[in-house]
Amino acid sequence: MADHLLLDAGSGGMASQRLIGEYFTQAFGNPILNVLDDAALLEAFTGKMAMSTDGYTVTPLFFPGGSIGTLAVHGTVNDVAMLGARPRYLSCAFVLEEGLELEILGRVANDMGEAAKKAGVLIVTGDTKVVPKGSCDQIFITTTGIGEILVPHPPSGHAAKPGDAIIVSGSLGDHGLTIMAAREDLPFVSDVRSDSAPLNGLVQDLLAACQVHVLRDPTRGGFATTLNEIAKQSKVGIRIRERDLPIHESVRSGCSFMGLDPLYLANEGKCLCFVPEAEAQKALAIMRSSPFGQEAAIVGSVHEDPSARVILETAIGGERLLGMLEGAQLPRIC
Amino acid sequence: MADHLLLDAGSGGMASQRLIGEYFTQAFGNPILNVLDDAALLEAFTGKMAMSTDGYTVTPLFFPGGSIGTLAVHGTVNDVAMLGARPRYLSCAFVLEEGLELEILGRVANDMGEAAKKAGVLIVTGDTKVVPKGSCDQIFITTTGIGEILVPHPPSGHAAKPGDAIIVSGSLGDHGLTIMAAREDLPFVSDVRSDSAPLNGLVQDLLAACQVHVLRDPTRGGFATTLNEIAKQSKVGIRIRERDLPIHESVRSGCSFMGLDPLYLANEGKCLCFVPEAEAQKALAIMRSSPFGQEAAIVGSVHEDPSARVILETAIGGERLLGMLEGAQLPRIC
Repeated sequence: MADHLLLDAGSGGMASQRLIGEYFTQAFGNPILNVLDDAALLEAFTGKMAMSTDGYTVTPLFFPGGSIGTLAVHGTVNDVAMLGARPRYLSCAFVLEEGLELEILGRVANDMGEAAKKAGVLIVTGDTKVVPKGSCDQIFITTTGIGEILVPHPPSGHAAKPGDAIIVSGSLGDHGLTIMAAREDLPFVSDVRSDSAPLNGLVQDLLAACQVHVLRDPTRGGFATTLNEIAKQSKVGIRIRERDLPIHESVRSGCSFMGLDPLYLANEGKCLCFVPEAEAQKALAIMRSSPFGQEAAIVGSVHEDPSARVILETAIGGERLLGMLEGAQLPRIC
Repeated sequence: MADHLLLDAGSGGMASQRLIGEYFTQAFGNPILNVLDDAALLEAFTGKMAMSTDGYTVTPLFFPGGSIGTLAVHGTVNDVAMLGARPRYLSCAFVLEEGLELEILGRVANDMGEAAKKAGVLIVTGDTKVVPKGSCDQIFITTTGIGEILVPHPPSGHAAKPGDAIIVSGSLGDHGLTIMAAREDLPFVSDVRSDSAPLNGLVQDLLAACQVHVLRDPTRGGFATTLNEIAKQSKVGIRIRERDLPIHESVRSGCSFMGLDPLYLANEGKCLCFVPEAEAQKALAIMRSSPFGQEAAIVGSVHEDPSARVILETAIGGERLLGMLEGAQLPRIC
């Protein structure tokens, strides 16, 4: 059983300390985390703050392009960035299943450490619970991020304005289809990989140069659901040009085979950005200069419409209402 | 199935929004949370910050003196307070099991709302995942708290000094024994209830009046394990007088019956405070003036000892080494 997690490791005693030392401080330790007090002591921010939290329950734990560890860092980093903030610190709380292979835990922790390093954030405090076998499925991670707001008027889903151009930072549906394919072990869906990536650098460059009204990352519910949320929050209409949407051919064909719509699939390294039409080309160029925005495209615009409809101008010249996701396409996608 | 949670509610679509509206913003909504952007926008703090996170997996969900909802607020509020900070904001992330009775979710959310109100903190952002039946046990909650540091030299487990007096804010072992009794349905353990409580008010009063070296809340691992952590971190010896320890008679007899040591049981509304001997009576009086510190007692002292031993002076005049908890007394205690 030395290769498997024991209940003792969640007790708060010696076994907990060993687990923390061998897996967590080893993978993402830093001077703040290593103090191991009840809370982390952080320097003051100069301005307003953003705070965001997400639980990660994805299955399988590892998939092409990422893992629960990369998602747990990128997802929360991105949510903080979407408020126009520079993410600085993350906390992480693990719920682990008794009997978990420790090699798996080590790989997840290492993925978190690498992702945090690349995103330029520190994991400063954490918690570990171990529950009896059968009480959870392997590993759940909750991360919470805080960051410094970079602009006087932070972007918000409530701030879309008629005349705004809508830019998406890259291809849609990759993460969702990757998880489905990995879970079902579908041989006919190949060449898809999760887009799990940190967007804070791209966002910081955008904010420095453009007047950004809305930033959102279309995770669960996908592109279409996120647009509907923004339309409702801002009480505006949105028009999207289907032919301009960046969707990888592998995703298009995989979705077609499985009867899925890529516009409702989760993304984990993409953002939607609303800027005044006059700034659209500049924003697009900035996105494309980022390693995570090379396929960015201007895909639509905002209009007056008190009923807050999202309309898709289809590739063949028609129009259809793009509704909100009602239920779930797939549980445990992130 | 309308009384039970469906997978759809974790999809990020309409069903998610209904769940959030009906259960969460209803129970603990506030102007910051209700914006429902990807992250919460918070005012700047003036000084340094404390950040802490904890996962809550307690079973049963409800027990005498509290619930997973009260713990999820009090536990994190207390961890932030232990760094000498005033807790201000909490995030909360739920992992919920498909099929969960919605009435249970409502009670837990209401408990969180009430606890947050009493502790004077706002729940400003959150996340909800729903996993298929059998992938988790009912409800797991992770909360993360941030607060403003109130003093130039925050208390730390590394700051105990020879000559310090050790004060405990009240009786020991109540939470741990309550959970064991509730889980095993032990009829012979009566009159025990969890001490789940917010300590931020008590801590704020202490910090305003005394030079506090160490503050820690003895949760998992209990009083004895926490003292060992402090002794090791500060490289000092600790002596505890058994006869001065506040332990309720019901806990003493329950532990004796079950073969447990109350010094290793979890507490959820207690703190250990180390102050210079000269300030001990003042600190004691301040604790006792709080509704959550009425049974506070001075129970020991700090000495030079490079081997960092914790010694219990027993009630009958002997001495014994009080070691650290090795494994687990009980999983899912908090």
